[in-house]
Amino acid sequence: MKTILKGSESEVVINTEGPVVIIGESINPTRRKKLVSTLSERNFEVVYDLATSQIEAGADVLDVNVGFPGVDDAKLLPETVMAIQEKYDVPLCIDSPNPYAIEAALKVINGKCLINSVNGEEKSLDAILPLAKEHNAVVIGLVMDDNGITHDPEQRLRIAEKILNRAVKIGICEEDVVIDPLAMAVSAVPDAGAVTLETIRLVSTRLGLNITMGASNISFGLPIRGVLNSSFMAMAIMNGLSCPITNPVLVTSAIRATDLLLGRDDYAMRYIEHYKSRL
Amino acid sequence: MKTILKGSESEVVINTEGPVVIIGESINPTRRKKLVSTLSERNFEVVYDLATSQIEAGADVLDVNVGFPGVDDAKLLPETVMAIQEKYDVPLCIDSPNPYAIEAALKVINGKCLINSVNGEEKSLDAILPLAKEHNAVVIGLVMDDNGITHDPEQRLRIAEKILNRAVKIGICEEDVVIDPLAMAVSAVPDAGAVTLETIRLVSTRLGLNITMGASNISFGLPIRGVLNSSFMAMAIMNGLSCPITNPVLVTSAIRATDLLLGRDDYAMRYIEHYKSRL
Repeated sequence: MKTILKGSESEVVINTEGPVVIIGESINPTRRKKLVSTLSERNFEVVYDLATSQIEAGADVLDVNVGFPGVDDAKLLPETVMAIQEKYDVPLCIDSPNPYAIEAALKVINGKCLINSVNGEEKSLDAILPLAKEHNAVVIGLVMDDNGITHDPEQRLRIAEKILNRAVKIGICEEDVVIDPLAMAVSAVPDAGAVTLETIRLVSTRLGLNITMGASNISFGLPIRGVLNSSFMAMAIMNGLSCPITNPVLVTSAIRATDLLLGRDDYAMRYIEHYKSRL
Repeated sequence: MKTILKGSESEVVINTEGPVVIIGESINPTRRKKLVSTLSERNFEVVYDLATSQIEAGADVLDVNVGFPGVDDAKLLPETVMAIQEKYDVPLCIDSPNPYAIEAALKVINGKCLINSVNGEEKSLDAILPLAKEHNAVVIGLVMDDNGITHDPEQRLRIAEKILNRAVKIGICEEDVVIDPLAMAVSAVPDAGAVTLETIRLVSTRLGLNITMGASNISFGLPIRGVLNSSFMAMAIMNGLSCPITNPVLVTSAIRATDLLLGRDDYAMRYIEHYKSRL
């Protein structure tokens, strides 16, 4: 299945058959004090630095999250989107728990973006899906609902189905629903890795949708996180993860390696091109 | 399924459910000039260095290969085995294409070893399986036969079945057959990774046997091989690889990470223990 994202003129195709599309996670205030302080002054230099470094490292899409304590992100999110669009023509993934911020950002978006995210809660479905339909956006469906977070992969699949059905019912195309199987820290939940990998396999084989994931959470609180993130990435991609939200500066090598090993990179061209760009 | 290997007093259990058992690959003359020159003089100091470094890095079993041009390995292999057994009580994997060398080594082995390897060729089955039976050894079955190497995973599965059936017919227990799905360089054969991963999945789900693999071949001829080896290792382990033959100094971190992510390492104890040993 192919999901198409657009910038002003650019186009990115997320294909369930690969190769992997990388959504850069780094425009996000969590643990980035300098981003918070500059954004507070409507100074977008740090945003630009993060955009440039991620695109150079292999990001195809940029996640944009400007949530921090005290911010009015219904104002700051569209302003940041406009600032990025002035300099870069790459599809965006607008990331906020606040439907008003999502709506405000959708009004200024060029092209076709990702919304991060809707989930299976009635409140979320009612707020976000009509916005996705109205603005012709692709929506990420996170597999939690009014009962909270389940650790049963079959239940997570059922929530994914519910989100898909509700989206289709209001006229959103199936390919414009991308599922996030929910990755939690294995340091907190010992079977978090296995549950997420099995959820990916189920969503991929039963629903055939494109799959994204905040892939760095899994290693939170553990040493040498890069090894955990790379190993998890490889397994998740084999099971059907097609567009991870991750730090391309750290894991593009592992992603290119995985595509190559899965026979999705003829003559190792993308792998070697990435390797050369790192020299 | 559980396959039990033994040293003089030690025991290693290879379990299809994990965690992964590491077979150290480094006692092997390929690209190790100093090993060749010292072995030629029956000096085992380099062998000891390689044994120590691999065990410290996490090897549970040591592969022993002393094949190089001009060597009489029917003499040198048993001598090397005896030298290792004098200093280390770890199960061994005796590795030679020469049945006479295998037989000579089996005569001096303490415990229960691995034979690396038999394959589906009639000549190989006739020479190796009776030795495995006679000496109560575990045998690695490499999925090639008189027709050479196939790139069809279903055909590779059939060769694995043939080796298993022939072994069982002469009285070898099913659990004493470990399959090698054959990993070739993706630089030479673009679909080598995908074919091997699918063969592992088929052997695991249909035959339920333990699975080994010379896991470093896959990246031959490409840059930053460690990234390819680690990503391949993670995917192969998820599909059923239970006892890779690899360089523990380089990939034990990725293996421990993968076990942790698959929910096979309660409280991340083995992962953190390995991390601490590397400090």
